[in-house]
Amino acid sequence: MADPAGSGPAAERDRLRRQVEAVNTAFYEAIESGDLDAMQELWLDDPDAVCVHPGAAPVRGPRPIQRSWALVMAHTQYIQFFLTDVEVSIRAGVASVTCTENVLTGDERTGPDVFGGGRAVATNVFVRTADGWRLWIHHASPVLSRGREDDE
Amino acid sequence: MADPAGSGPAAERDRLRRQVEAVNTAFYEAIESGDLDAMQELWLDDPDAVCVHPGAAPVRGPRPIQRSWALVMAHTQYIQFFLTDVEVSIRAGVASVTCTENVLTGDERTGPDVFGGGRAVATNVFVRTADGWRLWIHHASPVLSRGREDDE
Repeated sequence: MADPAGSGPAAERDRLRRQVEAVNTAFYEAIESGDLDAMQELWLDDPDAVCVHPGAAPVRGPRPIQRSWALVMAHTQYIQFFLTDVEVSIRAGVASVTCTENVLTGDERTGPDVFGGGRAVATNVFVRTADGWRLWIHHASPVLSRGREDDE
Repeated sequence: MADPAGSGPAAERDRLRRQVEAVNTAFYEAIESGDLDAMQELWLDDPDAVCVHPGAAPVRGPRPIQRSWALVMAHTQYIQFFLTDVEVSIRAGVASVTCTENVLTGDERTGPDVFGGGRAVATNVFVRTADGWRLWIHHASPVLSRGREDDE
């Protein structure tokens, strides 16, 4: 059914989806700008929060997660994310975003004019709270094989 | 507060947690026994279901996910999972299980008396439905670095 008035379930779904996309974008912007405070605000303040960096074991709880991002940011001179294959799925106050992170980086090893890159796949699960959507789970993993996304 | 009667919120939380642990165990048993029908039943019948095999791009939707497991099972002569570091977290009808998959495998290359192995970290997100908990997201990734779990 069309929903020309912009209200009703379809409009509400669109509104929630845009909120989730915005907070997912804010997450990657926090990494790009090395903004540790912004990163902290995006996470659920709960011991159940879990973060899996590519190739790493899980980090659990707000303080260990925050320390892990401080380390990532300290070792990254330049990083930029180009997200592709972004899919949002919302169920009962929980939203999942899966996306491919196409990453462009520069660091001490590559030098000022050379950039490295890579591809990871991320699952970001957000919980709706009184303060907005907050990250419950971030799981990123390196893409080693060629998938169907390459057809794009 | 103690909850000696086995009712109330604490007992309900325990009951849900045991349900989630059971379905998470059933998921790994389906892989171990190569039971594609059992695997199919565990998944949410929804285009939003997403499965990330270690090192791979996301697979989305029931049929592509089922095909991906058929491929995994066809190429696996023997596989056994020893789960460690299992953490269950439940919010609003959605449950997340993160765990380390310590994997023992045998295939054509290793021969009948030799086993390979590896370690992956998995995030399994289940949704509570009228038919029980169903897999919404499975994201597994290889563990390349040594994490704090090694202290165990």
